[in-house]
Amino acid sequence: MSTTLTETTTATANGPTNIHHLNGSSNSFIEYGSTYTHAEDLIPASEYQERIAKVRDALPKAGLTGLIGFGDCWRGSNVCYFTEFRPLDGVSDIANAIFFLGVDSDPALFVSKQCVNYASECTTFPVYSFDELHKRLSAFAANHTGTLGLAGHAYIPWDLMKRVEAAVGNLKIEPTKLLAEIKAIKSDREVALILKASALTDAAMVAIRETLKDGKPHTERELALIGDRAMLAGGADRTAFDAMVQAGPRSGFNLARPTDRVVQPGDLVMTDIGARYRGYVADGGRGFTYGEASKEKKAIVQAAARAVEAGLKTARPGITCSDLNAVIQQSLVESGYEEYSSEARGHGTGHGTGMDCEEEQPWIGPGNQTVLKPNMVFTLKATITVPNVGGLRTERIVQITETGVKALDVFPMELYW
Amino acid sequence: MSTTLTETTTATANGPTNIHHLNGSSNSFIEYGSTYTHAEDLIPASEYQERIAKVRDALPKAGLTGLIGFGDCWRGSNVCYFTEFRPLDGVSDIANAIFFLGVDSDPALFVSKQCVNYASECTTFPVYSFDELHKRLSAFAANHTGTLGLAGHAYIPWDLMKRVEAAVGNLKIEPTKLLAEIKAIKSDREVALILKASALTDAAMVAIRETLKDGKPHTERELALIGDRAMLAGGADRTAFDAMVQAGPRSGFNLARPTDRVVQPGDLVMTDIGARYRGYVADGGRGFTYGEASKEKKAIVQAAARAVEAGLKTARPGITCSDLNAVIQQSLVESGYEEYSSEARGHGTGHGTGMDCEEEQPWIGPGNQTVLKPNMVFTLKATITVPNVGGLRTERIVQITETGVKALDVFPMELYW
Repeated sequence: MSTTLTETTTATANGPTNIHHLNGSSNSFIEYGSTYTHAEDLIPASEYQERIAKVRDALPKAGLTGLIGFGDCWRGSNVCYFTEFRPLDGVSDIANAIFFLGVDSDPALFVSKQCVNYASECTTFPVYSFDELHKRLSAFAANHTGTLGLAGHAYIPWDLMKRVEAAVGNLKIEPTKLLAEIKAIKSDREVALILKASALTDAAMVAIRETLKDGKPHTERELALIGDRAMLAGGADRTAFDAMVQAGPRSGFNLARPTDRVVQPGDLVMTDIGARYRGYVADGGRGFTYGEASKEKKAIVQAAARAVEAGLKTARPGITCSDLNAVIQQSLVESGYEEYSSEARGHGTGHGTGMDCEEEQPWIGPGNQTVLKPNMVFTLKATITVPNVGGLRTERIVQITETGVKALDVFPMELYW
Repeated sequence: MSTTLTETTTATANGPTNIHHLNGSSNSFIEYGSTYTHAEDLIPASEYQERIAKVRDALPKAGLTGLIGFGDCWRGSNVCYFTEFRPLDGVSDIANAIFFLGVDSDPALFVSKQCVNYASECTTFPVYSFDELHKRLSAFAANHTGTLGLAGHAYIPWDLMKRVEAAVGNLKIEPTKLLAEIKAIKSDREVALILKASALTDAAMVAIRETLKDGKPHTERELALIGDRAMLAGGADRTAFDAMVQAGPRSGFNLARPTDRVVQPGDLVMTDIGARYRGYVADGGRGFTYGEASKEKKAIVQAAARAVEAGLKTARPGITCSDLNAVIQQSLVESGYEEYSSEARGHGTGHGTGMDCEEEQPWIGPGNQTVLKPNMVFTLKATITVPNVGGLRTERIVQITETGVKALDVFPMELYW
């Protein structure tokens, strides 16, 4: 890791000269001077070591004899929390990784053979290939009893899990929230990186708005690409996820890919966009009407914005996720969209974010008694989809402060372009 | 699906006007006029129906009573082969999908509740939420005996697999190659889309080369972004995967993210880049030396290029994957890189590609007796990594023709910039 830090510091001297010309004139309304990588932007080795110590201390209190953290390239936080290792690619199993920490053992990272060299550069502790998983886990199991907590149970592949189960012998494996709860509270360094990712996400929204202003026809696909380019031009590592831009009848779909459909005057438009900056992400959504739009469509934009606003007014340290959720949910119900909003029907109105777009805690949903604490970072959202009219999602990214809440993105929620 | 086709056709009339200005002057050396979406670019509903019929017919011959195809947003081909459904995003489980086809049942697609509306637009057969998985699979299981083939066993999540296992009762589940073998042979329409993705991938390489030509300092990150922008500007849906650009000591790493390291004269540079065009992908790698480079480094570039060339000379219908692999492997050994190349050590020298970057067949590796057939599309690759010198990967995308092989990408393999 020290190698990486040194190289980065050296390169930074050339950074602005090299990268600045990527910032095309169409994005010149935002000054990106502050978003080049500076050494102080990166998480230092000492912070990774503190995290390892924190989790190890928490294991016995949670009744666990060890932790298995699974990560792939898109949901890497159960591994990245302990190491800079976050491989590219999602197309094969070689991006998979397992972090293992026993109550009384040194941490170890298991990765595919092809990634051992790269991973070794990113950690302060030993890296092994998956070929050694059985030997090392079974050696641990031979001297321990009890339960291993598993972080990432919802996406660890079946094949790999069978290998883990075979290796741990008589030790039980149970999904645990321990790691999710610890990593939900961000350090100031982490918040600073998420803030930069949020600024880049705002820049994508601005670029889309500016493009639509020219009055020419624009397709969903074009607008999504313009958002992507604004984030990349601003210094993003990459987008946090593929941008959603869907207009008219398609505005109500989830996870649909943008098409060549031209955004039409009168359309409701759904956007859901996020940037990744030095390993941390933002996740933002705005819905708007384009051109002359019906009262009915404008009311949808307003209702979503008001629901999120209600959340912003309520969020503060000391209240539970469940209570915060209730306020947003109630606002949507009162606006008359109970039938047309999953959040209004109780499916949750926000999620943790940071290294992964969706981290498990804090989940802002019914029944979650987790108490909000300073430096928790999460989204607040309201989705409304009315059949034959259209849909949108308004999603903000927020940080709990010592006394209240701060929105990390600034782009306005109510737009009638 | 017909809705989508109609909308796309309508939008195409505005396409060139809308999208052309995305094509920045730095990329004007390639004419993208042909890469807008035309209705004929898309796979028609009839082709999806033919695919379903083909797989259903093959089930009893393979001794299977049904097929379970799992897909997520990055490895979607086991689902996309039967439907246009390919959701965005990789950050949560809502992009997961299961395609089910019994020997004597109608096909069914199971997706998360949030994706039912979108998925329904993309298919010609019923879409259900995962909530109905248990009921529908167990109803099938009640009337059948035997084995269900599973496509995607290496990446189906553990949690979801437990639900599938619980639903199918006494039916056995076994990984199957059936679907991989059928989808390995592309239709002419599919080949045309992969060819466009290859042209966009070439455009990324050209853009990187042109940028380096200016003689100014450029970082790995900047070059990766310039490659991405060239693909997006040319009409790509998205990149097929995050671009790898790694220079100097980092050129030997697999799946590393580009950093702010400035490419230095004398560096070996590794690139691995791919575009996605209308659901189909290319996967291309080129290694090069930048500026004055040692004989030793130039020899690495040459050896990788010669190995892939040997493969291009050998590939034709009728030979086995194993025989083709042996030729490339042998070339690397003869060049003296047995110790420094995973391909030389027998880890395989290519993989199928199409809807996923890495499809299971044809796998060009030792022991694979699969016979090459016209319209199989796959990569041929040679990776060389010499400690303290550097590394690279040369990877071409090729199509087996009636009499030989055709490279779908054209960018040169030997470069000393």
